[in-house]
Amino acid sequence: MYVAETRVRVRYGETDQMGYVYYGNYAMYYEVGRVEALRQLGLTYKELEDMGVMMPVLENHSFFLAAGLYDDELTVRVTIREKPSVRIRFEYEITNAAGKLINKGETLLAFVDKKTGRPCRPPKVFDDTLKPYFG
Amino acid sequence: MYVAETRVRVRYGETDQMGYVYYGNYAMYYEVGRVEALRQLGLTYKELEDMGVMMPVLENHSFFLAAGLYDDELTVRVTIREKPSVRIRFEYEITNAAGKLINKGETLLAFVDKKTGRPCRPPKVFDDTLKPYFG
Amino acid sequence: MYVAETRVRVRYGETDQMGYVYYGNYAMYYEVGRVEALRQLGLTYKELEDMGVMMPVLENHSFFLAAGLYDDELTVRVTIREKPSVRIRFEYEITNAAGKLINKGETLLAFVDKKTGRPCRPPKVFDDTLKPYFG
Amino acid sequence: MYVAETRVRVRYGETDQMGYVYYGNYAMYYEVGRVEALRQLGLTYKELEDMGVMMPVLENHSFFLAAGLYDDELTVRVTIREKPSVRIRFEYEITNAAGKLINKGETLLAFVDKKTGRPCRPPKVFDDTLKPYFG
Repeated sequence: MYVAETRVRVRYGETDQMGYVYYGNYAMYYEVGRVEALRQLGLTYKELEDMGVMMPVLENHSFFLAAGLYDDELTVRVTIREKPSVRIRFEYEITNAAGKLINKGETLLAFVDKKTGRPCRPPKVFDDTLKPYFG
Repeated sequence: MYVAETRVRVRYGETDQMGYVYYGNYAMYYEVGRVEALRQLGLTYKELEDMGVMMPVLENHSFFLAAGLYDDELTVRVTIREKPSVRIRFEYEITNAAGKLINKGETLLAFVDKKTGRPCRPPKVFDDTLKPYFG
Repeated sequence: MYVAETRVRVRYGETDQMGYVYYGNYAMYYEVGRVEALRQLGLTYKELEDMGVMMPVLENHSFFLAAGLYDDELTVRVTIREKPSVRIRFEYEITNAAGKLINKGETLLAFVDKKTGRPCRPPKVFDDTLKPYFG
Repeated sequence: MYVAETRVRVRYGETDQMGYVYYGNYAMYYEVGRVEALRQLGLTYKELEDMGVMMPVLENHSFFLAAGLYDDELTVRVTIREKPSVRIRFEYEITNAAGKLINKGETLLAFVDKKTGRPCRPPKVFDDTLKPYFG
């Protein structure tokens, strides 16, 4: 299991007239969370694409437990629970500055060869880096 | 059961560098779908808020089956399968111009009193308008 | 001079907690306006990219005259005043359903060869289609 | 004159299929820049709204000099050149990690009383905090 945390501050343009973070914007927070989780391992999604592999999202599930508010500094806690194969699942827990859990979710992503457009294995460096966490 | 369809054209700003619709933008297409589904019944979400009721999203589930592409004219088919109570569930099927199903999803929304911030029943006009579909 | 109009309905996710359309979202309305203005001439930006030409934005200028509100059906009036060369300027006037002018702006775009990344002339079909409007 | 800098990392969802940051997203980077510039002075826009003052944008001008790319860590340099009155002008210079200037712009904002909707003076704490910079 691999767990990492990153911070995201809510932007004004991410709120809606209800005064909350628009529900569609959590997908972006998830993206920031998983990208930074990988970066903390020395892996960048940008390099992955440069190696010819892209990671489209197959599924997204979100539970909106409490409102995210403007200027809140949110903590996005990302968990990879199972060893990635041709797919990788990220779980998210988002808490506000008061420590209240406001959002839970998960996304399933595929590894896809950019040239063929077909599912593929993650690059070796990806596997090697994550292996120690799934002993 | 109530079913309605509406069209949405993919904007350039909604794509990402993968050349697909960014996964977070489907939430906006769902929003357009359910708002237009209600409008076709003579109900507008704007009036609902004016009546003091707002509808925050509690859950969102999305399955990304194929890529949405720039300038595609998508059809968002919205289904309300169960009679709404203090919550209402919308199901979505998004097809591209070729008729291919590219996205499936559902959202669960609550009716909330804007003043108290507490769950409430939908306004009577809402119930009355939807009743015929849930014999 | 070429003038065209298109309609855009304000989405919930495009508002912010001020209760107005977030100022950054007008760029998307401008995009819809200019793309539909070209489509009304039989030109699509998508085809332009397929022909190997892309049109990055060089400048954007916006004047926010009155608030755009949720669910407003806006009219985006687009004017091309000068014959396009390696650049093309679009002017925008956005009015709400009451006919009130809420936003004025203009964008300057370049024609760029996708392969070389260098400025280029618009494709011949583009020139030919617009020529009648610039005596 | 007051100058401040803040960093923003380009998110995947902020790119478009050209592979660049979508031009409409710079407005959000400007927002982050000016909000963080004020925060570095001990002022938060959130508190300003809590004091009953909001700051709608009146004008936005952007010059797109070079492409912003996915995962770039951008520096947003914000300058307030003139002492704010009922309006405040922010200037922006955005550079990428290589130090290249990719975007220049400015926005003009008003101070507006949330209750009356009319232009107003900035709160005293705002004036007092900025005064030393406009000797």
